[in-house]
Amino acid sequence: MNKNIAILSGDGIGPEVTAQAVKVIEAVEEVYGHSFEKTEALIGAIAIDATGEPFPIETEEVCKSSDAILFGAIGHPKYDNDPNAKVRPEQGLLKMRKNLGLFANVRPVASFEALLSLSPLKEERIKGVDFVVFRELTGGIYFGQPRGRSEDGKSAFDSCTYTEAEIQRVAHLAFKSAQNRRKKLTLVDKANVLATSRLWRQVVTEMAPQYPDVELDFMFVDNAAMQIIQYPAHFDVVLTENMFGDIITDEASVISGSLGLLASASMGSGLGLYEPIHGSYPQATGKNIANPIGAILSAAMLLEYSFDLIEESNAIKAAVNQAVQEGFLTEDLNKENAKSTTEVGDKIAELI
Amino acid sequence: MNKNIAILSGDGIGPEVTAQAVKVIEAVEEVYGHSFEKTEALIGAIAIDATGEPFPIETEEVCKSSDAILFGAIGHPKYDNDPNAKVRPEQGLLKMRKNLGLFANVRPVASFEALLSLSPLKEERIKGVDFVVFRELTGGIYFGQPRGRSEDGKSAFDSCTYTEAEIQRVAHLAFKSAQNRRKKLTLVDKANVLATSRLWRQVVTEMAPQYPDVELDFMFVDNAAMQIIQYPAHFDVVLTENMFGDIITDEASVISGSLGLLASASMGSGLGLYEPIHGSYPQATGKNIANPIGAILSAAMLLEYSFDLIEESNAIKAAVNQAVQEGFLTEDLNKENAKSTTEVGDKIAELI
Ligand SMILES: CC(C)[C@H](C(=O)O)[C@@H](O)C(=O)O
Ligand SMILES: CC(C)[C@H](C(=O)O)[C@@H](O)C(=O)O
Repeated sequence: MNKNIAILSGDGIGPEVTAQAVKVIEAVEEVYGHSFEKTEALIGAIAIDATGEPFPIETEEVCKSSDAILFGAIGHPKYDNDPNAKVRPEQGLLKMRKNLGLFANVRPVASFEALLSLSPLKEERIKGVDFVVFRELTGGIYFGQPRGRSEDGKSAFDSCTYTEAEIQRVAHLAFKSAQNRRKKLTLVDKANVLATSRLWRQVVTEMAPQYPDVELDFMFVDNAAMQIIQYPAHFDVVLTENMFGDIITDEASVISGSLGLLASASMGSGLGLYEPIHGSYPQATGKNIANPIGAILSAAMLLEYSFDLIEESNAIKAAVNQAVQEGFLTEDLNKENAKSTTEVGDKIAELI
Repeated sequence: MNKNIAILSGDGIGPEVTAQAVKVIEAVEEVYGHSFEKTEALIGAIAIDATGEPFPIETEEVCKSSDAILFGAIGHPKYDNDPNAKVRPEQGLLKMRKNLGLFANVRPVASFEALLSLSPLKEERIKGVDFVVFRELTGGIYFGQPRGRSEDGKSAFDSCTYTEAEIQRVAHLAFKSAQNRRKKLTLVDKANVLATSRLWRQVVTEMAPQYPDVELDFMFVDNAAMQIIQYPAHFDVVLTENMFGDIITDEASVISGSLGLLASASMGSGLGLYEPIHGSYPQATGKNIANPIGAILSAAMLLEYSFDLIEESNAIKAAVNQAVQEGFLTEDLNKENAKSTTEVGDKIAELI
């Protein structure tokens, strides 16, 4: 198979972990006889430094002429505490999501049998946890207008908006996913306070008859924030809007014991983007200590979702599982006998 | 001491648990020679049923002529899935907060030594957890205008707004609390995306020099949702806006193992309101099984914060601790040998 992959490794530990994912993809190419053209492009703080733009037009063009995107992370501390910064790395991420139509972020949450002991949660709570969150990614308060400051600078405002169509397209994906899983869909909202949440509840309720085999229920976001920790095994598919999804998916990531293990997919009209969920992790940058497994599993998701290469994707997952079982892990997962980022990447590539 | 307390027991299990708190307050009156005039008033779904209004003007008057408010819960399932309901119980709660100027919700989170085993978190993570969340309560997306539906009903919008003054008044309370505690204040926001969050960060940063003994740091809300579960013992005082506070405080409540144990205070310009955090819990209503400890500890907070009756407040806390240690508990905390709501209330009143 010949395909083009855009490689956007971004900021912080992004380049280090993405390099391992690329290494593993190359191993897959060799073993299974594929040929993937990989094109690197800039995004985030490094793109600002080089071009003044966090998501330059050249990068957008590389993405649009690719079949899938492998993404690292963006973000740099120098922008976080500067309320007046005109350009921020995050704008690049948001613009990319919007311009590429990546309206659904899909995040699987499952516990690794061999790593149950690392979770802050008790093992009996997280055994068998296996759910997936569908987060709407290009609407809501992240994009709503107007937003900004009053003239005197003494007040600020953001707007949250949703249309029926924006809700339907991501909800269809979530319903379909539930049909292929345990047939339970939970809509997380704040319908007792927000007008947008009431629209979500109405639209999703109206769609439910199209998916008669899926059981639909509703949960207020505050309650969901508790239930995800109290009874994570109760969830199957969770559907929610952009901001709630941001919070809930990161919260849910603690279940597995390490952020470094988790991958996510962002999809929409065609093109899919795959990224580890850990972010740019500035403290670890350049130290060759970051966990590359999230990035490597993102590559596995890419092969499965965008290229339909199920066997190849499973080969990556199996290699990761073996490395985990052997304890061949970075310091977040194995303090006593830690391997470096590149060692873990080499090992997993070798196991393909 | 002579004081007036407004009793707003509300919906669901509200009346059952509030009755136990009143019982304990009466025991305090007897033992310590105080006399509190208690006036009941309607709020929530029962107020809608009786008057058409979730926070009737008579109730507002009772509150305004009282020295403190003991509150139960509001909410009824018949309103939750009806996106078109014109009046909702929650509106009563929001209107009360707004009209009484209750701009700060204060929620202590601590682990009960005797109940560590009930938490979904591992004991080593929650040992010694002791933090308090200051949630802004009368601003943000809960109240911002405009909000509603487009004319064709196919889109919806909410507005999040904050002014400098709204941020300052709650931030002052949080800084002061930090001064009396471990001197660490964490502002939770989403300043990498939201204009309102950038105003929060700016205003709080500008206030920091007034509290030179307090160490201020910042955390994005998605990261905070992880850290609160991963490393809850790291927090001292957390300050955040309304919606993030709603989510974060409920999430944090799982640490103690039971929602039923937690109390909260809402304060502002003068009057304080005290409530258990568990909500109306419709499934348990009328069964005499709800845990009254959250309501009873709310009464303890009332005596301490509004009446400065420290000894009396401590007497309640000591009685609760003794009941907990003896395992004299409702079924959420003691499945094998569960006591009823009234039995636990009687016991704690007796121990005063
Ligand atoms: C970096 C930030 C803008 C982003 C978001 O909030 O969407 C990140 O937290 C994420 O979840 O991908
Ligand atoms: C009932 C609801 C409107 C309320 C809120 O979101 O503020 C509740 O969840 C709370 O936290 O007191």
